[in-house]
Amino acid sequence: MPIGDRPLPFDEFVEVLRREGFQRYHHQHPFHRLMNGGQLTPGQMRAWLVNRFYYQSVIPIKDAAILANCPVREVRRVWIRRILDHDGTADKPGGIEAWLRFGEAMGLRRDQILQADVLPGVRLAGDAYVNFCKTRSWLEGVASSLTELFAPTAIEERLTALRRHYPWIRPDGFTYFEWRLQAARQDAADALEILRQYCVTAEDQRRCLHALIFKTELLWSLLDAVYLEYVVRNDGKTPYDEVSGP
Amino acid sequence: MPIGDRPLPFDEFVEVLRREGFQRYHHQHPFHRLMNGGQLTPGQMRAWLVNRFYYQSVIPIKDAAILANCPVREVRRVWIRRILDHDGTADKPGGIEAWLRFGEAMGLRRDQILQADVLPGVRLAGDAYVNFCKTRSWLEGVASSLTELFAPTAIEERLTALRRHYPWIRPDGFTYFEWRLQAARQDAADALEILRQYCVTAEDQRRCLHALIFKTELLWSLLDAVYLEYVVRNDGKTPYDEVSGP
Repeated sequence: MPIGDRPLPFDEFVEVLRREGFQRYHHQHPFHRLMNGGQLTPGQMRAWLVNRFYYQSVIPIKDAAILANCPVREVRRVWIRRILDHDGTADKPGGIEAWLRFGEAMGLRRDQILQADVLPGVRLAGDAYVNFCKTRSWLEGVASSLTELFAPTAIEERLTALRRHYPWIRPDGFTYFEWRLQAARQDAADALEILRQYCVTAEDQRRCLHALIFKTELLWSLLDAVYLEYVVRNDGKTPYDEVSGP
Repeated sequence: MPIGDRPLPFDEFVEVLRREGFQRYHHQHPFHRLMNGGQLTPGQMRAWLVNRFYYQSVIPIKDAAILANCPVREVRRVWIRRILDHDGTADKPGGIEAWLRFGEAMGLRRDQILQADVLPGVRLAGDAYVNFCKTRSWLEGVASSLTELFAPTAIEERLTALRRHYPWIRPDGFTYFEWRLQAARQDAADALEILRQYCVTAEDQRRCLHALIFKTELLWSLLDAVYLEYVVRNDGKTPYDEVSGP
């Protein structure tokens, strides 16, 4: 563990977070490598989208859990924007809706996404995230969001791959990623600013580093489930190979 | 218990909620009777305000706990307004800030309110509310908010009493109550609409009725602590009799 008895200077701590987080981030997962290499079938892409939707749908819930543990009004006033961003408001449809539209751009019906039986490993990963944010400190919840530090680069690469290798996806479905490209930067900056103020002891730093590692493992594990079921098993066949089913 | 094996028609259920809630609501508590009768000293009024602030400060936290338990995006999109209302936004200072200004209008300094040692019974009541919303279903959390059904009448009476009997309080401090007079009506209507959709079984109805009763008991118990310490004990002397202390 790179943090000893005394807290690191903040900038060094952020470097540790970046290094330890980046090397575990799921952009390296075999499934995302296949995706970026253009090697996934339409069914595999749809199966990923449907399963990942479970994760998308718990984001506002884990953020509300962070709020519910946070006695600092100034932090809550910053953090609540994430819930509004994903759930949407009267003016803006929000991130969950954008993900559904991404699915429609892949030829899925909305109810196929909303009512899907997701894989047990995917459900475990999503539920573990909510549980983590409910049972750990709000500061660890904030730190766990810092995978956003690595999201913009991964999303840029993904967008390029989507446009190049998957011409059967309607490009108006990419709004979600175009939005995240900007929003992830702001979200990461907000989270780091909160850590700068509130993550001050060596123990805080260790817990926050652990929170980020936990989060990377959770994202990785979600893709393990998807890879095993839709790439390794069944010769790559999925229930989503024909857009009409299941 | 007025709910049997089969659910009541919704309008009857609401009547039960109103009846069972109203008869336990804290507008009848001896402390509020003294307040409305103009019989409290400035020190007693300030002591109430400071202690009640603890309750005010957990409102957004309990509402975030309700959000964090709620998988229904449509409900979350309605409910999140409460957090924004109390914590405030860039445009609006919010309910917690309005309560602090009410305290200033009574001659208190902001730090006297923010850093006060509140009474143990008050802390218990506030924490019990957060705990309830964290550990019970989101629907019971929603139902527990329905003391708002009784708030407008109580607030009207309180505002009249404040203006008539407590001329030493600067009237610009009453903004909080003037706001709640309107907002409580909207909040109660929103909560009832959610119950109409989601509180459908007899078991749901029993749990929701219990949630409202629990909430009335909690508000009552908060005032018990205040009444005992600042009316019964110490001959009505409080640490807030002089505006400079404590």
